[in-house]
Amino acid sequence: MYNKKMYELGSHQSAIRELFEYGKKRKQEIGEQNVYDFSLGNPSVPAPSVVNKTLVKLIKEKDSCMLHGYTSAAGDYGVRKSIADYLNKTYHANVSADLMYLTVGAAASLTISLNAVLNEGDEVIVVAPFFPEYIVFIEKAKGVPVIIDSDENFLPNLVELRKKVNSKTKAIIINYPNNPTGVMIDEETLKSLCTILKECEEKYNHNIYLISDEPYRELLYNGLKYNFVTNYYDNTIVCYSFSKSLSLPGERIGYVLVKPSSNFSKDVFYAICGAGRSLGFVCAPALFQYLISECLGKTSDLSIYETNRDLLYKELTKIGYNVVKPDGAFYLFVKALEPSASDFALTARNFELLIVPSDSFGCAGYVRISYCVDTDMIKRSISAFEKLYHVYEEKK
Amino acid sequence: MYNKKMYELGSHQSAIRELFEYGKKRKQEIGEQNVYDFSLGNPSVPAPSVVNKTLVKLIKEKDSCMLHGYTSAAGDYGVRKSIADYLNKTYHANVSADLMYLTVGAAASLTISLNAVLNEGDEVIVVAPFFPEYIVFIEKAKGVPVIIDSDENFLPNLVELRKKVNSKTKAIIINYPNNPTGVMIDEETLKSLCTILKECEEKYNHNIYLISDEPYRELLYNGLKYNFVTNYYDNTIVCYSFSKSLSLPGERIGYVLVKPSSNFSKDVFYAICGAGRSLGFVCAPALFQYLISECLGKTSDLSIYETNRDLLYKELTKIGYNVVKPDGAFYLFVKALEPSASDFALTARNFELLIVPSDSFGCAGYVRISYCVDTDMIKRSISAFEKLYHVYEEKK
Repeated sequence: MYNKKMYELGSHQSAIRELFEYGKKRKQEIGEQNVYDFSLGNPSVPAPSVVNKTLVKLIKEKDSCMLHGYTSAAGDYGVRKSIADYLNKTYHANVSADLMYLTVGAAASLTISLNAVLNEGDEVIVVAPFFPEYIVFIEKAKGVPVIIDSDENFLPNLVELRKKVNSKTKAIIINYPNNPTGVMIDEETLKSLCTILKECEEKYNHNIYLISDEPYRELLYNGLKYNFVTNYYDNTIVCYSFSKSLSLPGERIGYVLVKPSSNFSKDVFYAICGAGRSLGFVCAPALFQYLISECLGKTSDLSIYETNRDLLYKELTKIGYNVVKPDGAFYLFVKALEPSASDFALTARNFELLIVPSDSFGCAGYVRISYCVDTDMIKRSISAFEKLYHVYEEKK
Repeated sequence: MYNKKMYELGSHQSAIRELFEYGKKRKQEIGEQNVYDFSLGNPSVPAPSVVNKTLVKLIKEKDSCMLHGYTSAAGDYGVRKSIADYLNKTYHANVSADLMYLTVGAAASLTISLNAVLNEGDEVIVVAPFFPEYIVFIEKAKGVPVIIDSDENFLPNLVELRKKVNSKTKAIIINYPNNPTGVMIDEETLKSLCTILKECEEKYNHNIYLISDEPYRELLYNGLKYNFVTNYYDNTIVCYSFSKSLSLPGERIGYVLVKPSSNFSKDVFYAICGAGRSLGFVCAPALFQYLISECLGKTSDLSIYETNRDLLYKELTKIGYNVVKPDGAFYLFVKALEPSASDFALTARNFELLIVPSDSFGCAGYVRISYCVDTDMIKRSISAFEKLYHVYEEKK
């Protein structure tokens, strides 16, 4: 009567979404201030003031038919040019407006890229733990996800990578700073990963695309520098979104970028245009296209996330939790105190702590804490984390 | 190396787009005022003032994290409720916010609906002449387009419809007021069409979805009343966009609506949520969600289109052209003066008239004139239409 697979995807909420809905209900029952909701990656810091100022300026100054009219499918060329110029200046990225396609956010960047490069049965490598929707996107594009583990630093296990690449491998998705661990890939590991991919490209005599999902690119702490992936690998496709850096997750604005590395790059870009067209993306929202070209290099006040990170990391470690130290993003990955992360997260609910078990990230035994929340809530939550810890201490 | 089909779709421009690009070049060569560009369906009338006023109000008054944050995947519930209330009040549509999914425009509404209901190999009936992207969307959703002709009034040929429905038929797409003819379906024909579909549903014992693509719903002239399709058929899916009624084509905001007719409706809605999720639509742009709920029932000044229609229809008919009288939208369908519509459109270029041959609409021998243009340009173009006519008169 309809497509069963789509029904399954639509009727079964993700673990994150389910927890979020539970939290909404629970807050109504016992009061918002008594629930410690660490479930969602929804930016808690307002957009920088330049966003709303620029929106109002555009609305007041620009001709309505121009402002709200169709742009070309890949996006307004002037906007794309300004983004490419910014990336080249900031990261020596060596990218071109001609190979940039503006999208309605990172999810669209990923689905468009995957549909552009995959043929039915092609394999795509993802590194656990991973953002769960990767699997949904790959399968919808008729690809086959192949999961490799992380090493002890939560970076790709390169030995396993080499083993799992084969003649069907078409792409690998990487995501640093990472959701759910917050870990950033160091330059040496990135280089090693790219070397393996290059060797495999030669061995199997076809392109293997490195799809870099970078919504957290600007959320790096301790002054860490971002190594732009186009500098390390030819067949790179960058997927970006302004959701996190500008606190605009609901507005859906981002881009896909193909590295200009060979005559093939233009063909891949055409395939991206075709995928965007056939999936029903006509153009990215026009007003927000013009907005972002005036906000390049600007961000929300990200120092709040760094404050939250430092506070939570310090306090949880002090209590005794085993915590992965995040370099960026706004997630903390914490070892569960029992083998089942789901059971642990359920026990945490008894203390009104809403934390996401790691199973849906393709990895057992951890929980994800999203700290894009009020710092005050974190302070209030610490005693709950203490009580949770003691439940397990007493069982020993 | 990549997906060839996506490459083909991305590298080959549509006939409309190609003509538009030609027009841009030609305007640079001989001056904008000397080219009569009737190629695109891009609204020429500004958004009503309530749009920009409301945008500024929302930006100034609403909390940034709320305004620009994620909404639920189907859209903000309050917004959906206000749309459903408006439709129920205006059209006695009997629809529900619970079965409404906000989208990034009509193209997304269609791809999401098709991916939700189709399984590989399912057939979808489209009525020629049709919006060319229907074929792209159906094929990407693994469906098979089955084309039926229009009758002499450019309404579905119901005899052919009955012949072509079979056990594989999963849906039919209708689009009134129509692009490219401007024709509106009358109530009697709509009823007959629905009766046939109901009989076929019973005969083949499965649902046949009536997908009504309605971006031109408000663009109806001579006080014609819109017959809301949910009132005539149970398995209706309405695809709507605010692009044309509010002159916001670049902002990408619309919805899909499942008629609450059976226990199945909720399942179809879930499949729509799943399709939206797996295609990479996270939510419709948040700012524009809140905007539309405050602009329901408002439109751009559509009287300009009616003026354009009357002027063009009168003048072209007077010259001797055979013109389909449009009831709505902003398109005029005119019989080509030679068998090949493409050759006729090329000859028209000699007089700087940019008009779209009907072949890409699945119908031979016509051209489409988009009259969402300055009325002045139409006035200036009339002598060019006269000269074009006389080329063929002289050949007789």
